Amino acid sequence: AGCNTPQNQVHSAALANGQDMSGNETRSSSSMGTLNQKPKPMTIVRHGNNVTINMYTEETMVTIAPGVQFPAWTFDGTVPGPVLYLQQGDHVTLTLHNLDPNMPHSIDLHAAQVAPNQDFTEVAPGKSKTITFDASIPGVFMYHCETEPMALHIAEGMYGAIIVTPKGQQPPTYTIVQSEFYQAMDLNAVLNDPPNYVVFNGEANRYVDHPLEAKVGQPLTVAFVNAGPNDFSAFHVVGTILRDVQASGNPNNHLYDVQTYTVAPGDGALIHLEFNAPGTYAFVSHSMSQMEKGAMGEFNVTG
Amino acid sequence: AGCNTPQNQVHSAALANGQDMSGNETRSSSSMGTLNQKPKPMTIVRHGNNVTINMYTEETMVTIAPGVQFPAWTFDGTVPGPVLYLQQGDHVTLTLHNLDPNMPHSIDLHAAQVAPNQDFTEVAPGKSKTITFDASIPGVFMYHCETEPMALHIAEGMYGAIIVTPKGQQPPTYTIVQSEFYQAMDLNAVLNDPPNYVVFNGEANRYVDHPLEAKVGQPLTVAFVNAGPNDFSAFHVVGTILRDVQASGNPNNHLYDVQTYTVAPGDGALIHLEFNAPGTYAFVSHSMSQMEKGAMGEFNVTG
Amino acid sequence: AGCNTPQNQVHSAALANGQDMSGNETRSSSSMGTLNQKPKPMTIVRHGNNVTINMYTEETMVTIAPGVQFPAWTFDGTVPGPVLYLQQGDHVTLTLHNLDPNMPHSIDLHAAQVAPNQDFTEVAPGKSKTITFDASIPGVFMYHCETEPMALHIAEGMYGAIIVTPKGQQPPTYTIVQSEFYQAMDLNAVLNDPPNYVVFNGEANRYVDHPLEAKVGQPLTVAFVNAGPNDFSAFHVVGTILRDVQASGNPNNHLYDVQTYTVAPGDGALIHLEFNAPGTYAFVSHSMSQMEKGAMGEFNVTG
Ligand SMILES: [Cu+2]
Ligand SMILES: [Cu+2]
Ligand SMILES: [Cu+2]
Ligand SMILES: [Cu+2]
Ligand SMILES: [Cu+2]
Ligand SMILES: [Cu+2]
Ligand code: NA
Ligand code: NA
Ligand code: NA
Ligand code: NA
Ligand code: NA
Ligand code: NA
Ligand SMILES: [Zn+2]
Ligand SMILES: [Zn+2]
Ligand SMILES: [Zn+2]
Ligand SMILES: [Zn+2]
Ligand SMILES: [Zn+2]
Ligand SMILES: [Zn+2]
Ligand SMILES: [Zn+2]
Ligand SMILES: [Zn+2]
Ligand SMILES: [Zn+2]
Repeated sequence: AGCNTPQNQVHSAALANGQDMSGNETRSSSSMGTLNQKPKPMTIVRHGNNVTINMYTEETMVTIAPGVQFPAWTFDGTVPGPVLYLQQGDHVTLTLHNLDPNMPHSIDLHAAQVAPNQDFTEVAPGKSKTITFDASIPGVFMYHCETEPMALHIAEGMYGAIIVTPKGQQPPTYTIVQSEFYQAMDLNAVLNDPPNYVVFNGEANRYVDHPLEAKVGQPLTVAFVNAGPNDFSAFHVVGTILRDVQASGNPNNHLYDVQTYTVAPGDGALIHLEFNAPGTYAFVSHSMSQMEKGAMGEFNVTG
Repeated sequence: AGCNTPQNQVHSAALANGQDMSGNETRSSSSMGTLNQKPKPMTIVRHGNNVTINMYTEETMVTIAPGVQFPAWTFDGTVPGPVLYLQQGDHVTLTLHNLDPNMPHSIDLHAAQVAPNQDFTEVAPGKSKTITFDASIPGVFMYHCETEPMALHIAEGMYGAIIVTPKGQQPPTYTIVQSEFYQAMDLNAVLNDPPNYVVFNGEANRYVDHPLEAKVGQPLTVAFVNAGPNDFSAFHVVGTILRDVQASGNPNNHLYDVQTYTVAPGDGALIHLEFNAPGTYAFVSHSMSQMEKGAMGEFNVTG
Repeated sequence: AGCNTPQNQVHSAALANGQDMSGNETRSSSSMGTLNQKPKPMTIVRHGNNVTINMYTEETMVTIAPGVQFPAWTFDGTVPGPVLYLQQGDHVTLTLHNLDPNMPHSIDLHAAQVAPNQDFTEVAPGKSKTITFDASIPGVFMYHCETEPMALHIAEGMYGAIIVTPKGQQPPTYTIVQSEFYQAMDLNAVLNDPPNYVVFNGEANRYVDHPLEAKVGQPLTVAFVNAGPNDFSAFHVVGTILRDVQASGNPNNHLYDVQTYTVAPGDGALIHLEFNAPGTYAFVSHSMSQMEKGAMGEFNVTG
């Protein structure tokens, strides 16, 4: 149903009900009393190593499991927000436009080495803010809203991956962001209860219905980010062994031929793997309660 | 009481009540309304590098703490199932016989790089299934039942260690599998509650009563697997420092002289250690609630 | 308010109410029916590589969050206890004096490779015990009380950091000990409930009020210990990337340019970092529920 690559993160169900794609206006959600702003995609333009990005914070209803809608706070109307693909050495100018009329938002990019009290600060409703940074260190990084209560802004959906590819290398084949969902807008649940759903790229069992494609013997890379907000992930692929795992996606870090890899909330990794035979290979968090709550996907491997 | 090596995983209490060791018949448990099938040991035969294994899935009552019986779903009647010791380069033919009349089971071996939808599939009650794989990558791996709900099949006891020793090396001195127990057959408890017991090789404080033996200055290796189903382990040995920890048991990975090592559920490690003086040295998960619930054992170190 | 370095861990609030600093006498706490013994600082004396330490276990009221008092069991009247700074190769003679009239205590130092059943044993009320050990392996280690129920002795506050600096290196710039607080003296809460507070160096948001100082471009080292008792930490510094993380503080272990680092309960690390621009940089556990419960501090970076 149109969501078979992680780059295309807006599940069709999240765009249902005759939403008008042309405007920017907010409107009430019929179901939960929250806004359901039309997703506004980010823009990214490159001139040599100068990259200009525009992103938009919005309140949007999203689908987090089959038939389950969630009133999200978002980057660009999707959960997770868009993957930002950069190259090591890029000079980045990023403008965050807060389209949410109800509250301030902000952006903290783990790839950016800047003063947080200058650059990761709040943007008031209707306002925008521009920051610049150099993508000097390669990696698979998380970005997220940093407005307090940050646990709630993240639980509501405000996170994504920013990938800085090392000089001379290719971007990852796939990007997977793990995250948890709790009772919506319930900070106490976020702080004290187990999650209701744990998902890859925003929707429980998303890649069971729509597997990721791979070829026998083809080296793949998965950029994996654990957005949390709370729980550690145990990334595992059934039926193969992870050839090389690079902590934080940095090419100087290696773990060879491991079965499972721990990813802290707020961390990422670049994972090299391949498949020996055609078939269907699940990828999961091997923390079983996470898997049963939706942290499960599949590779469809063909000869 | 006859359980002083990890290779001998059937605690005497699990064999009480006049069980007939000669047959294979199922019978009702008097206490919990579940089956208590007689443990049927696996067989393993080696001809050069060709290894033939037979394993048996059964419902069996096991002892998980002094005086506490648990109606387990098992490999070969024990929790954990038997340790499978292989050598790098082995060609393995494994037949799983499902002796459980009540439900299908299956086996997923982290050491096997095969198509899960061909080789890790369900075996119906009374049926068997043969798979082949090459143990090409050395390591300390988990195996487990992969039948849904997998969290429950693991919580019920369906897991063990499969160790692939690198060419030219010796097998580990000891193998320790950590796991959690929840209210039996209660998937909701497995997904949302803290565990009731956290144990090494199937029984709370097992190696406090029956310590593992070691000699002063003797290099030891511990193959450690965390079967979960849910929680991360913080493996620690009181009174010494871990000389070298090899993630996933792979000889290319090293962490030197560490006090504690994180093992994700679904992961394993090979741990090199030694002791400087005679005495009693506890090994624990340093996550204290796990330790207090039974994740505690002891080395008895003699001069 | 007098608590701006981690070496000075006795927050002024813990010393309020006209406590007499000269004596050793216990007295009743007015608020919770527990003792509030006057903090007695440790002593440490060095002659060449021979180091002599005296430490004191006491029951003392401490401040764990603004306006929140906690009836702690302590080393030397503070939570965490004092940082023990050693050099690789030191010969250490440590005497533990149990000033607590109500129960035995003990000390387990992860830096010490000794027989626990000889050296980490209980010291009865009013008694003392002397142990010797060689600090042969460098690292950032935890120490803690090992008296059962150990989960409770740790939850009550009995832990600290012991740092063994490698030959030829400088001690860390800062030492940060993460820990959790539960309902006081409630073992069931420690074993089964989420924590009420998660703190750095004993007090929620301590270094938000009193930031750690740093200079632009100055290489810093943070010795980080996670005392638990239960939860894994996801150490992260907002606005920079961790240059080199040394597992267990050992100079042979490296992870380069990582955004977040997992520290198990009972583990430690030495973290190298620096800042590119003047500003305020938060350090947190990126497990958001921990952060919101107090695992948050700040660096004040000046030009
Ligand atoms: Cu926000
Ligand atoms: Cu962050
Ligand atoms: Cu099963
Ligand atoms: Cu598995
Ligand atoms: Cu104590
Ligand atoms: Cu310890
Ligand atoms: Na979604
Ligand atoms: Na696998
Ligand atoms: Na047992
Ligand atoms: Na130790
Ligand atoms: Na305090
Ligand atoms: Na950062
Ligand atoms: Zn779809
Ligand atoms: Zn630039
Ligand atoms: Zn704008
Ligand atoms: Zn026994
Ligand atoms: Zn073969
Ligand atoms: Zn058969
Ligand atoms: Zn203060
Ligand atoms: Zn000495
Ligand atoms: Zn004394």
